[in-house]
Amino acid sequence: MKRKIIFSIALLLVSLSSFSPANPIRIVFFGDSITQAGVSKTGYITQMLSMLANQGIADKYELIGAGIGGNKIYDLYLRHEDDLLAKKPNITVIYIGINDVWHKTSSRTGTDADKFEKFYNALIKKVQASGSQVVLCTPTVIGERYDATNENDGDLNRYSDIIRKIAKNNNCTLIDLRKAFLAYEQANNTENKESGILTTDRVHLNENGNKFLAETMWSVLKDLK
Amino acid sequence: MKRKIIFSIALLLVSLSSFSPANPIRIVFFGDSITQAGVSKTGYITQMLSMLANQGIADKYELIGAGIGGNKIYDLYLRHEDDLLAKKPNITVIYIGINDVWHKTSSRTGTDADKFEKFYNALIKKVQASGSQVVLCTPTVIGERYDATNENDGDLNRYSDIIRKIAKNNNCTLIDLRKAFLAYEQANNTENKESGILTTDRVHLNENGNKFLAETMWSVLKDLK
Amino acid sequence: MKRKIIFSIALLLVSLSSFSPANPIRIVFFGDSITQAGVSKTGYITQMLSMLANQGIADKYELIGAGIGGNKIYDLYLRHEDDLLAKKPNITVIYIGINDVWHKTSSRTGTDADKFEKFYNALIKKVQASGSQVVLCTPTVIGERYDATNENDGDLNRYSDIIRKIAKNNNCTLIDLRKAFLAYEQANNTENKESGILTTDRVHLNENGNKFLAETMWSVLKDLK
Amino acid sequence: MKRKIIFSIALLLVSLSSFSPANPIRIVFFGDSITQAGVSKTGYITQMLSMLANQGIADKYELIGAGIGGNKIYDLYLRHEDDLLAKKPNITVIYIGINDVWHKTSSRTGTDADKFEKFYNALIKKVQASGSQVVLCTPTVIGERYDATNENDGDLNRYSDIIRKIAKNNNCTLIDLRKAFLAYEQANNTENKESGILTTDRVHLNENGNKFLAETMWSVLKDLK
Repeated sequence: MKRKIIFSIALLLVSLSSFSPANPIRIVFFGDSITQAGVSKTGYITQMLSMLANQGIADKYELIGAGIGGNKIYDLYLRHEDDLLAKKPNITVIYIGINDVWHKTSSRTGTDADKFEKFYNALIKKVQASGSQVVLCTPTVIGERYDATNENDGDLNRYSDIIRKIAKNNNCTLIDLRKAFLAYEQANNTENKESGILTTDRVHLNENGNKFLAETMWSVLKDLK
Repeated sequence: MKRKIIFSIALLLVSLSSFSPANPIRIVFFGDSITQAGVSKTGYITQMLSMLANQGIADKYELIGAGIGGNKIYDLYLRHEDDLLAKKPNITVIYIGINDVWHKTSSRTGTDADKFEKFYNALIKKVQASGSQVVLCTPTVIGERYDATNENDGDLNRYSDIIRKIAKNNNCTLIDLRKAFLAYEQANNTENKESGILTTDRVHLNENGNKFLAETMWSVLKDLK
Repeated sequence: MKRKIIFSIALLLVSLSSFSPANPIRIVFFGDSITQAGVSKTGYITQMLSMLANQGIADKYELIGAGIGGNKIYDLYLRHEDDLLAKKPNITVIYIGINDVWHKTSSRTGTDADKFEKFYNALIKKVQASGSQVVLCTPTVIGERYDATNENDGDLNRYSDIIRKIAKNNNCTLIDLRKAFLAYEQANNTENKESGILTTDRVHLNENGNKFLAETMWSVLKDLK
Repeated sequence: MKRKIIFSIALLLVSLSSFSPANPIRIVFFGDSITQAGVSKTGYITQMLSMLANQGIADKYELIGAGIGGNKIYDLYLRHEDDLLAKKPNITVIYIGINDVWHKTSSRTGTDADKFEKFYNALIKKVQASGSQVVLCTPTVIGERYDATNENDGDLNRYSDIIRKIAKNNNCTLIDLRKAFLAYEQANNTENKESGILTTDRVHLNENGNKFLAETMWSVLKDLK
């Protein structure tokens, strides 16, 4: 009798887990235009969903995009309650920093390094206080030339270093997108082109770029619990 | 005789209390380096206190400086809970905007006009929700030449227009510092100098500038309740 | 008979020469994209030619455009031998300065005020040494708002002042385009629009802007000899 | 008797030439503030002179500084007749480009890459036409961090590539200062400091920097004839 009950419970658990987990892991991607486009047909979040489906684990995760074009770190801070915490994420992936650097040269409205760090830390504190795990990403590229001749390369490298330090100081998982993208360009951009390898316009990702981003992110996210 | 003395003391205390209210009006000045220097020996807040003392009304007001050098509108938003609301002001005077414009040309980290407006509105909403009255100031000057040849004049005028609009939309009292300063330069800067009239360095106020600022502000603040 | 024919031919030649002068006044317009577009169908040089034709004085002048998009004062200096002096102008109209100011904010490659003046003076010296009369123009507009809220207004006003000073110091005729354009905006831009009155895009002139420019320039050029 | 006199004169001429060559090689260094400071007590030109004296070959060379603070490529073009060609150099060393990049971020008055190339080529053409040999230098550093995190690194690398290309196209000797300086920083700047290794302020050279510059330049110049 006792064995029968145990067997039934085991069966029930199997059934539940095989049909639809009561609590999929909810991951919110909090970022800029790349994340806003991430939920489009070829966007990185859409492609990540396909990857999960192919692996038969789509129902274990809920992926939500929360990106707005032109956002910098302080814009994320301004809208973190309404657009992030309200979604009650288990995992928050912060992918920001390109506009903080780029807008220095495009519109003279970038973000000073010290304020970038200050707002980033303030945001992490709020998200961690909400109970969500926080994952940080370094910014990808502004210009795809692999030989360090893109105008914003110096600052992108510097702000990436700041993010790496913040991740360490706050015990956050890091997805080092910039490192991955630079390695990809080194290996594949044999003509040292400004765009067209992973981006359409030096910044925004083409389908291949979104695919590479999805794979790079997932290689880290898959191990989080 | 003894009763008479006691009576006199009682009368005196009553009189005093009628002069010295239990609840002075607390005004917090929330701003940038000019406000940070506002509490120094010749700063505008210090000079305003002297003015109130000379008028015999110093005990009716409590003036508190909350300025930090380099602050822009989004920095005020970041620290409004700790540095402003925690002080429980009756009246909040927001005097910001110079760095939002100036840092465009000095360090490529100014604030876009649309985001300036968005953060300003968000800040007002928070302060008004706390029960404090909100007073807005237009930015003063970056360069004192009166003939519209200072590099940042166009943007300073534009951001001043934005603040005037925000004040109107939120039913906030406006202290139009820029208008007052431009009129002062027109009348007094006969040699069309870049600095030395109201500022030491085109932006930060000299003693005379702090005096003029104190008078201009008080001419509006005195009527608030 | 023979004498009569000879007399008739002589008369004819005299008549012809009174209609078509052997030496029309050659005016070269030396400038940037506005001057490059000045020779297009609705450009200001083309419209000026029509004005002259309507007044029956087209054959007294030769108008030549020598504008290249993106040019600043130092670009004019670099190409003044090949593109200006080689054309042996009687009158040189220099219309430059917009990009020297504008590129500060659009691409961080504007021209410092002191170097603007130095190159301008060096150019005038070379042109005057060639025997050409030199006419200077102040820059028109970058943004058409009449209330001094266009971002580059401060610098445009300042560089205009520099050109006015250079004209005076070098005994050059001045065409004060900026003054004329600002007066036009004040009178006609009742909605305070950024573009669409005299420009298509805040800088480059629409047909009406080219017409106003042609008239403004000609009102000064017509009196030169 | 006559033969004796002739012999004596011949001897005298030989003696004279061995003490002080009739025609030392005249090298003019044409550049910016680093070259202006190059003739100061610890400047690179002064140190190069000491090196030559130590090697006993000081009288074979005449080293002349022609640097002016703040100069960019177009400033060199403007003053090449008066400040360079008038000195009749055998060898012209052009060391320019730092301000063309730096002023983009310091004052929004840098030089566009395409115009940098155009003015550089125009300058070389003029100098070569004068009969002087032309030697080009890549720009050194704006910030000494060796890990590609200095803000201007991307552009410095790019403009260095442009200079390398110009040198090749015009058959000019190249002194690749940037390559040498980056290698030095990699080897010696173990703490990845912004300044203090070869510069005092991220750009201008300290005594050690001037020494390294003198040695690097001379290692190439010594072989020129």
